[in-house]
Amino acid sequence: MTYTTKTFNLPELSGLSAKQIKVHLGLYAGYVKHVNLIPEKIAQLAKENKLENQYLIHELRRRFGFEFNGMRMHEYYFEQFENEATERNANSALEKATTEKYGNGENFIAHIREVAGSRGIGWVVVYADPRANTIHTVFVNDHEVGQLAGLPVLLALDMWEHAFMVDYVPSEKASYIDAFFANLNWQTIEARFENTLQS
Amino acid sequence: MTYTTKTFNLPELSGLSAKQIKVHLGLYAGYVKHVNLIPEKIAQLAKENKLENQYLIHELRRRFGFEFNGMRMHEYYFEQFENEATERNANSALEKATTEKYGNGENFIAHIREVAGSRGIGWVVVYADPRANTIHTVFVNDHEVGQLAGLPVLLALDMWEHAFMVDYVPSEKASYIDAFFANLNWQTIEARFENTLQS
Amino acid sequence: MTYTTKTFNLPELSGLSAKQIKVHLGLYAGYVKHVNLIPEKIAQLAKENKLENQYLIHELRRRFGFEFNGMRMHEYYFEQFENEATERNANSALEKATTEKYGNGENFIAHIREVAGSRGIGWVVVYADPRANTIHTVFVNDHEVGQLAGLPVLLALDMWEHAFMVDYVPSEKASYIDAFFANLNWQTIEARFENTLQS
Amino acid sequence: MTYTTKTFNLPELSGLSAKQIKVHLGLYAGYVKHVNLIPEKIAQLAKENKLENQYLIHELRRRFGFEFNGMRMHEYYFEQFENEATERNANSALEKATTEKYGNGENFIAHIREVAGSRGIGWVVVYADPRANTIHTVFVNDHEVGQLAGLPVLLALDMWEHAFMVDYVPSEKASYIDAFFANLNWQTIEARFENTLQS
Repeated sequence: MTYTTKTFNLPELSGLSAKQIKVHLGLYAGYVKHVNLIPEKIAQLAKENKLENQYLIHELRRRFGFEFNGMRMHEYYFEQFENEATERNANSALEKATTEKYGNGENFIAHIREVAGSRGIGWVVVYADPRANTIHTVFVNDHEVGQLAGLPVLLALDMWEHAFMVDYVPSEKASYIDAFFANLNWQTIEARFENTLQS
Repeated sequence: MTYTTKTFNLPELSGLSAKQIKVHLGLYAGYVKHVNLIPEKIAQLAKENKLENQYLIHELRRRFGFEFNGMRMHEYYFEQFENEATERNANSALEKATTEKYGNGENFIAHIREVAGSRGIGWVVVYADPRANTIHTVFVNDHEVGQLAGLPVLLALDMWEHAFMVDYVPSEKASYIDAFFANLNWQTIEARFENTLQS
Repeated sequence: MTYTTKTFNLPELSGLSAKQIKVHLGLYAGYVKHVNLIPEKIAQLAKENKLENQYLIHELRRRFGFEFNGMRMHEYYFEQFENEATERNANSALEKATTEKYGNGENFIAHIREVAGSRGIGWVVVYADPRANTIHTVFVNDHEVGQLAGLPVLLALDMWEHAFMVDYVPSEKASYIDAFFANLNWQTIEARFENTLQS
Repeated sequence: MTYTTKTFNLPELSGLSAKQIKVHLGLYAGYVKHVNLIPEKIAQLAKENKLENQYLIHELRRRFGFEFNGMRMHEYYFEQFENEATERNANSALEKATTEKYGNGENFIAHIREVAGSRGIGWVVVYADPRANTIHTVFVNDHEVGQLAGLPVLLALDMWEHAFMVDYVPSEKASYIDAFFANLNWQTIEARFENTLQS
């Protein structure tokens, strides 16, 4: 089983330059490469059948979450910009759920912005918890520290410095987040939530 | 929204004493308590409406993944022992998928044991990746370091020292893992996998 | 350069059984072994001179902090019990510094106990910061998450579950900490602090 | 005790723009601010004397390593550029120690470059281990994951994206590292090592 680097159908984005996106997609491709490399290397080391390879195998595997999430989170991120930006659908199940949790859809966006103000680098991630019929918004350090176990991802906002530093310096993070929301195709996010209701 | 401490319908377990399970369930209850405490504290701090509370809020929220996963992973763990131990169903979709990935069902179990030999404390977690029609088995440090983003959890093996040290010392980990597999209700795990195929 | 497993001149300890100490020293020996294994494996992989080994080397080295600190922190820990428990010296430089920071020596101990109440597993570590003429007491997750960069270690209290679970269950942590302080040779800790004043 | 934002006596640097340095120093100031904020907030919360504040205090303190190291590592970093770049002193104790470990001084630099190729963001850190008369070079994730406990820092190379992305994109990391070495005042690093020999 090999993962492939996806191509995203991105329109021209507002507030995010072509160079910024190109650099970012280049980093995404690096994650896909290493997601494939880890099991390949583990298989090689296992085949050598040396007891002393066990430790190498364990330490390679321990890093899988970093690379896998580096791949998958970037897929969630870029998919959100595909086709074209759309408004939130006031009649969507997502709007209903976010209104229940955060008061209304605008508050939900304000909440994401507030979480994005967390220090360090990582992701703002919005999850559904189908077992409890609720939504959680957290800050994940790096790609793999603090992901909520087993929960489907609804929205992913990349707060690594590489996501914006071609276009902005760190003190201009707010403008980057403006650009993120300006380019968001909410239909994608609403569909992700719909999908969690069916299972 | 408040999470409640679940009661698990546990049979008498082989190789895991009643005291071990009682201690472990007590720790589980602590996670549920703190999962509820974090949003409550954040709401209090937000209501005070002081700019300087922002940092406290962010740092409390950063810890949510530890507590949430501490709760949820233990739920996955104890659910697997509910009702009674059952054999693997050779005709299940899970058996088909694990055979494809690991050669056969016995190899799958051997693989989990191998991953459980990773140094440090945490969990062996088996996930489905429905996007790629495959299965991943990783070692998660603590509760929240290295969880695979967005993937449903199929099987959870607790490798914290508290999971076995009432009954075993660390050099007897293999006996603990024997006990884990002896008590496993595979129907629960097979049903989790079935569930990922429907969405 | 090879690290060797140290032998500690431990008296009979109060509140910590011989079995507890034996299990704990066994784990310490595992860290020493792996501290030596990592550079050895890296050297082997580097000698093969394959570009593709680079990633393995990096991921092995990333784990060095876990193993090295697992070794060194346990050395700090057991050295503190060597020879015999002694009272705090009211005229020591340490007593002066802790009084300045925490009010008095008893408050210092109360502070360590408070920090030890942090959730999760790891260490309470007291450091000197010679650049700022002060002392810091923090909780380090696992062995390697949150160590203060470049600061000499004065006192190390092991809060991994293996440090006490032969003798106590997690809800009895307070008794374990009682035992820790009952067995402490404060001369060792005072000498560590003296040493930071000379450089 | 309050930490103050240091001013560094920086010459004009080659390969690192004035804007890059200004942005970077701005981030450094943020760490100093938060190093002071954490104990201040903890003191406030402790004064309220509510049992329920304990958890907030613990979670704030858990983050101290991130902020403290964010401050201290940047101090190590910028100090290395103070005054002016100098060549390595072939007669220094450091040269002797690095030759013993890495073959010769050039190999030492090549080794740092190799470690800098580790994936993710963080620091290459060179430490002395006075207990074992040796040197270790590791990659620290973020600021606080994998720091070697108790060891004095000799050299710090910032591999966060903010350290270079004003001037370079991530695929040009090698040019940033060239600039780092071109601007290094080796006397500072040699003096740090000398200092570890005296205690």
